[in-house]
Amino acid sequence: MTKLQKIANFLADNAIDMTFLTNPTTVNYLTGFSMDPHERILGLMIFPDQAPVLFTPELEVEKAKSFVDFDVFGYVDSENPWQKIKSSLARRKVSKIAVEYDHLILSKSAGLKSVFDNVEFADLTPLINQMRLIKSPDEIQKMIVAGDFADKCFDIGFNFAASDPNLTEMDIVAKIEFEMKRQGISEMSFETMVLSGARAANPHGIPEAIKIQQNKLLLFDLGVMSDGYASDATRTISIGQPTDFDRKIYEITREAQAAAFNFVKPGVTAFEVDKVARDVITKAGYGDYFTHRTGHGIGMDVHEFPSIGGSEDITIEKGMCFSIEPGIYIPEKVGVRIEDCLYVTDNGAESLTKTSKDLLVF
Amino acid sequence: MTKLQKIANFLADNAIDMTFLTNPTTVNYLTGFSMDPHERILGLMIFPDQAPVLFTPELEVEKAKSFVDFDVFGYVDSENPWQKIKSSLARRKVSKIAVEYDHLILSKSAGLKSVFDNVEFADLTPLINQMRLIKSPDEIQKMIVAGDFADKCFDIGFNFAASDPNLTEMDIVAKIEFEMKRQGISEMSFETMVLSGARAANPHGIPEAIKIQQNKLLLFDLGVMSDGYASDATRTISIGQPTDFDRKIYEITREAQAAAFNFVKPGVTAFEVDKVARDVITKAGYGDYFTHRTGHGIGMDVHEFPSIGGSEDITIEKGMCFSIEPGIYIPEKVGVRIEDCLYVTDNGAESLTKTSKDLLVF
Repeated sequence: MTKLQKIANFLADNAIDMTFLTNPTTVNYLTGFSMDPHERILGLMIFPDQAPVLFTPELEVEKAKSFVDFDVFGYVDSENPWQKIKSSLARRKVSKIAVEYDHLILSKSAGLKSVFDNVEFADLTPLINQMRLIKSPDEIQKMIVAGDFADKCFDIGFNFAASDPNLTEMDIVAKIEFEMKRQGISEMSFETMVLSGARAANPHGIPEAIKIQQNKLLLFDLGVMSDGYASDATRTISIGQPTDFDRKIYEITREAQAAAFNFVKPGVTAFEVDKVARDVITKAGYGDYFTHRTGHGIGMDVHEFPSIGGSEDITIEKGMCFSIEPGIYIPEKVGVRIEDCLYVTDNGAESLTKTSKDLLVF
Repeated sequence: MTKLQKIANFLADNAIDMTFLTNPTTVNYLTGFSMDPHERILGLMIFPDQAPVLFTPELEVEKAKSFVDFDVFGYVDSENPWQKIKSSLARRKVSKIAVEYDHLILSKSAGLKSVFDNVEFADLTPLINQMRLIKSPDEIQKMIVAGDFADKCFDIGFNFAASDPNLTEMDIVAKIEFEMKRQGISEMSFETMVLSGARAANPHGIPEAIKIQQNKLLLFDLGVMSDGYASDATRTISIGQPTDFDRKIYEITREAQAAAFNFVKPGVTAFEVDKVARDVITKAGYGDYFTHRTGHGIGMDVHEFPSIGGSEDITIEKGMCFSIEPGIYIPEKVGVRIEDCLYVTDNGAESLTKTSKDLLVF
């Protein structure tokens, strides 16, 4: 059964008249057509009883037609898109529309309400999340390729950082992204993070034009978008000799990361995985400095369902992909995080990134 | 009157109990605090009768406190954020919340509804748009700086493109973004576009690892984020000698861009500005190939209110900033666009980018 058919069946089973899916990633996942409508409107309409219809800005109609085998129609900036959508469905009664609560903004839900009287919405996010949660072998293959590029980024970044003591965090970011673009990667999966010394004690720190410090740790958190799929990995290395304290913090983090990673297999829960990592760090006395969840799902989005140690639990299944990324952040002193994303196998997990987790000293 | 006070007064005048503003750009505009919560929750609560309160992920609380002189509180991933918000307002009756319809997603409006019984929403987008529409001298100064960086990008890109006939579109993108990062620009305002020859006939084309063609036009559309403000500009140059036809299309586009730019002053309307550009291209016989609006507002977002030639008209006022970017796109043949963003003065407009609009031949 195709993904589109699965959704059509869901609509039929739940007496929903149509979808209006606006998340470009969802549209890409379901159709292979990728575009960013910015403030314009993209909508994939799936029906219980007829072929889907894709609605896009007029500029994208021709491209979209080359990806889908169903109708595509567009609107120009001077037209009211909602009226155009309504007109295209003139004879159809629409009283319930499945949308993505995690993506649809109120102005667009108001747009739909303006043309479909008394329409009700149902949330398709859980079904989409469930479908995207278990990656197919083809998807995992794409994630392996994206992971390989992250490893290349580490190699480039580590060597560049070690090449000149006058380089800044931003210089290293620039170099990594430059080399990726030269290798055909048009987009990183998020803003590359290179943070020196105590600056890495902020898990959401932002690289600046600040020189990297010698004899301090240097944290790299990065990933690419490759063929629609994201990678995401973190390594912390040492530029010059680390202090004993920095090395100790590193080794605790490494042990936590390895413990959680090795614990993952079908049947355990996300909360249990989080606890395994957290227990290592807590027992070492640094539990208060591990201030975030252990991981997040990854796929076409760099952060997606499920959360590993968030507010909701889930049982791990084969084919899930998520990060294991414990960290210890001691303000004014040091920040260490080690992260791999993995895919769950029959009885364990495989890492999508292979760069050594020994404390590398450059 | 401060921006926050202006909103507080609006709430009082409209019997609204509080705001819950989730757009990071709005929060930055109102408070100077900049962060991206990704899938987590950022909410600025402004009240008609008491100091505002900022709600952020726990990791961001300390940073936020250094930007605002009112309360900040956070939540960790294992907490229900909506319950935490509700608890913090325990004694307050909340029956109407002003939110941004252009930003709030249904899952978050559902979150608010889950803790505030029978709450109604009002849309604060029009007021925020109106406030952001007229830029202060300080904002214009930041936009001038962002524009200067766009000019630097052109200089870098033009010279690099001319330096080696084996370079690809993506190589040139990589070079421009690398040099910007080395100059402290951490973020482009959108994905840099470098398109060779007929590939520029797609106004939303994506650069690829494809060699730039000799004796063809080469289109650059780019901009940076600088101190919270965006630039956005387009130039089309020639690599080698252009054909007479390409030159003709270029000159028509240039005339349309100049005519619309010179027409801008307080009191004219956005539709009139669009018509001036469109008339030039239509009279030359290429109206069908100018397939988008003439421009868009710009400021902290690269695309913001108002639209110049979209579905709604607006009267131009001093302090507005927007693009003038007509283009002619002839499939399989050639694409030309020329774009400057401007700010409206007492009796005209000043361009934020200065790169020559002669057809430069490299």
